[in-house]
Formats: sequence, structure tokens, C-alpha cells
Amino acid sequence: MRNELYLSYYVKPSKGVGFLTIKYPNGSNYISSNRSNKDRPINYGDRGMTLEQEINDSNSYYLMKGIAVIHKKPTPIQIVKVDYPRRSAAVIKEAYFKQASTTDYNGIYMGKYIDFDAKETMNKTSLPLSNFHEHQIVHMKKCVEQGGICFALVKFVRLNEIFVLNSDNLFTFWNRMKNDGRKSISKKEFENLGYKINYQINPVLPYLDAVKKIIDSLN
Amino acid sequence: MRNELYLSYYVKPSKGVGFLTIKYPNGSNYISSNRSNKDRPINYGDRGMTLEQEINDSNSYYLMKGIAVIHKKPTPIQIVKVDYPRRSAAVIKEAYFKQASTTDYNGIYMGKYIDFDAKETMNKTSLPLSNFHEHQIVHMKKCVEQGGICFALVKFVRLNEIFVLNSDNLFTFWNRMKNDGRKSISKKEFENLGYKINYQINPVLPYLDAVKKIIDSLN
Repeated sequence: MRNELYLSYYVKPSKGVGFLTIKYPNGSNYISSNRSNKDRPINYGDRGMTLEQEINDSNSYYLMKGIAVIHKKPTPIQIVKVDYPRRSAAVIKEAYFKQASTTDYNGIYMGKYIDFDAKETMNKTSLPLSNFHEHQIVHMKKCVEQGGICFALVKFVRLNEIFVLNSDNLFTFWNRMKNDGRKSISKKEFENLGYKINYQINPVLPYLDAVKKIIDSLN
Repeated sequence: MRNELYLSYYVKPSKGVGFLTIKYPNGSNYISSNRSNKDRPINYGDRGMTLEQEINDSNSYYLMKGIAVIHKKPTPIQIVKVDYPRRSAAVIKEAYFKQASTTDYNGIYMGKYIDFDAKETMNKTSLPLSNFHEHQIVHMKKCVEQGGICFALVKFVRLNEIFVLNSDNLFTFWNRMKNDGRKSISKKEFENLGYKINYQINPVLPYLDAVKKIIDSLN
């Protein structure tokens, strides 16, 4: 168990340059280190991963364990010019980022359609609603109408705190802003209405625990 | 009604260059024409749309009518180099197409998670299974395990015939190939096991009718 903790602490997916790299069965790298880890407190978060990496990592775990199938959608790109050099792959020479018309993540869990967006904020006291686009809210509303489970997964980066906020609450705060109310969701509101997600080993971000609570609350 | 038929015949989304273009409430263009349409047989398919356009068009209709929320995922791109010219949008200067790890379309319909891929073939008698990648089959199997509805939407281009084939049948044919059987699904097998989709006005490709039959058959 001690060994497992030690290993997990140093697993840094998609990195490993300059170290002896060992591939785990799930494709993650094991990064060897001679530094003693004994006296340091174990912090499962803050491993140099972005929120996106933490979610992708967790989704890989959920997929591998047969718990859920959830993927991040590719970033939408408007391709303008493509070169086809002989004997090699097509090279995109000119392209632009497009605004996504939906949310970033979707999939299936507990037989339910799951749809959510992830947001990071450096703000310590609230999440500005400018982090959301109107069409993302509209998209989530349409999914909820069809029986889907939608939410926002929000990370207060400086506090290293993560919350799942069900879309119903998000819609309420969105409407409050539309009615000339405050343009953000306070940290307090996340604490009162959201589900706090604590980092752990596997998955690093067990956000589906909160989703299960949302689904259970519907029955 | 006659007028509606006439209008629909000339609605060509995303086109309209060189014509008088009128925007419909749903954003489609109406392309004016002086040609008489009276004596021509009405062919709802073969309007110069690719299968992808036909599906996207149908998904827009389903979305607008509150019937389903299904979107095509963006093409996955590996971005290598991005320029940030002053006062204008970021320009991607070097990027490559990546192989998708999932299928092309997913969403929600009748409360169910929907996941499918679309395939076109110029072949008149069968669909070569080389149109599918192993990881697409694996992905569909994982979705089915979670209670999702997966299928292939196949167009025999030269025959202008479209079929929905449920993933269970697709898996059977995939296994047949793996056991040194034939490397394709015959047209006859599509006729026997699949659901034929006939072109119509709105949506142009009413493929959810077949999906409803699949869902109903589960209950």
C-alpha cells in the first residue's frame, strides 16, 4: 500500500522526458526518482496537472474499470489550407480555432447521458459567469430536457478546490445575472449547493461520485 | 403544401453563392430560381449533400424540434505551431490529422445515450469492414455495456440507399471477419437485419425512426 502511494505520487502522464520511463499497463509513465518522499505530506492534487489532464486521467481510469465512457471532444478547428507532401501525412498549413457549439465533455454513466464543461478560475472568492457562453447554457438546457445529466466542474486553482455544480443551479445563477443580479457564483454558493471533490489516488478526481449523488437525487 | 415542397427542394444549407439568398429563421438559405420545378420528379435525397451534411442537417432539425440533441464531434487535430499575429486571431500554421479514438456522432434521444458512426461506400453489393477501426468497435462495445444505443449509419452512394445497422449486428459481422470469415457486410445482410432509411423533406434523413425501433425492441 505504501508502495502504491509512492508510485502514484510520481505518475505524471504525458511527461517523462529526461527520466527513466517505464510504461504502466494503462500507458502512463512511471517516473523514477531518487528523492526521498517519506517526510513530505502527500498531496494528491497539485501534481503539475491542469484540470483538463486531471479529468482526462480520471476518465481513462473510469473507462479502464468499465465504470463510464466519457471523453473530451476535440477542439473545433476551421481548416483553410492543407498541403499533401509526397509520401508523408497531410499537413494543415492554415487553420483557426472555432468557438465550440457545445460543452467539452460528454458520455455515458449509470445508463445516463452525461454532459459537462470544466472551468478553472484564479479567483479565490467566486467564479465569474463570463466563463460560460450563452450557447453552452442553451446546450445544457436542451440536454436536460432530453433527460441528460449536465453540470459544471469548477476548479478554484489557488485554493486547489474542486466542485461539481448541477446544471439546475447553474441555470439559476445564469438567470440571476440576466436579471441584473451578480455576474458570478460565489465560493460560498459552491460550498452550499455544489459537491466538493477531494483529490485521491485513482481516479485523481472522483467527480462521478458527485454525479451519482445527482442521479440518485432524481429517483 | 405544394409551396413547402417547392421551397424544401431548393434549400441548400451552407451554399447560395451567386444567387439571391434569403435567410430562413433556422439560418438556412433559400435559393431563388426561375426554373420550373413542376415536371421534375421530386427526389429528396441526392441534393448534392454528402452523408455528413445530410446527418448534420437532420440533427439540426431534431435539435430545433426538441426531439434529440446529437452533434458531430470535431475532427481531432494535433497542433504543432500557432502564430499570434498582432490584433488578429491566432493562426494555426502546422497541424496534423489525428485518428479519432471514438465514433463521430453522439448525443441523447429518448433519454438514451446515442453513439454512432457514418460510413459511405461506392460498392454496390457490400460494405467492406475495413471502413471500421478496431478502436471504434471497442468504443461501441463499451458504450453498449453502459446502456448506450450504438449503430452504424451506412450509405450505398451509387444506389442512394441508407441503412441503420444496430451495433449487435455489427459486432457479429466483425467477429465473423476475426474468425476468418468474409471481410464485408453484404447488402443483403443490411436488407435483412438493418433498418432502411428513406429520404424525406424534414429531416432529410429520418434515422431516429430506426433508432426508436431499436430502443423499443429493448423493452
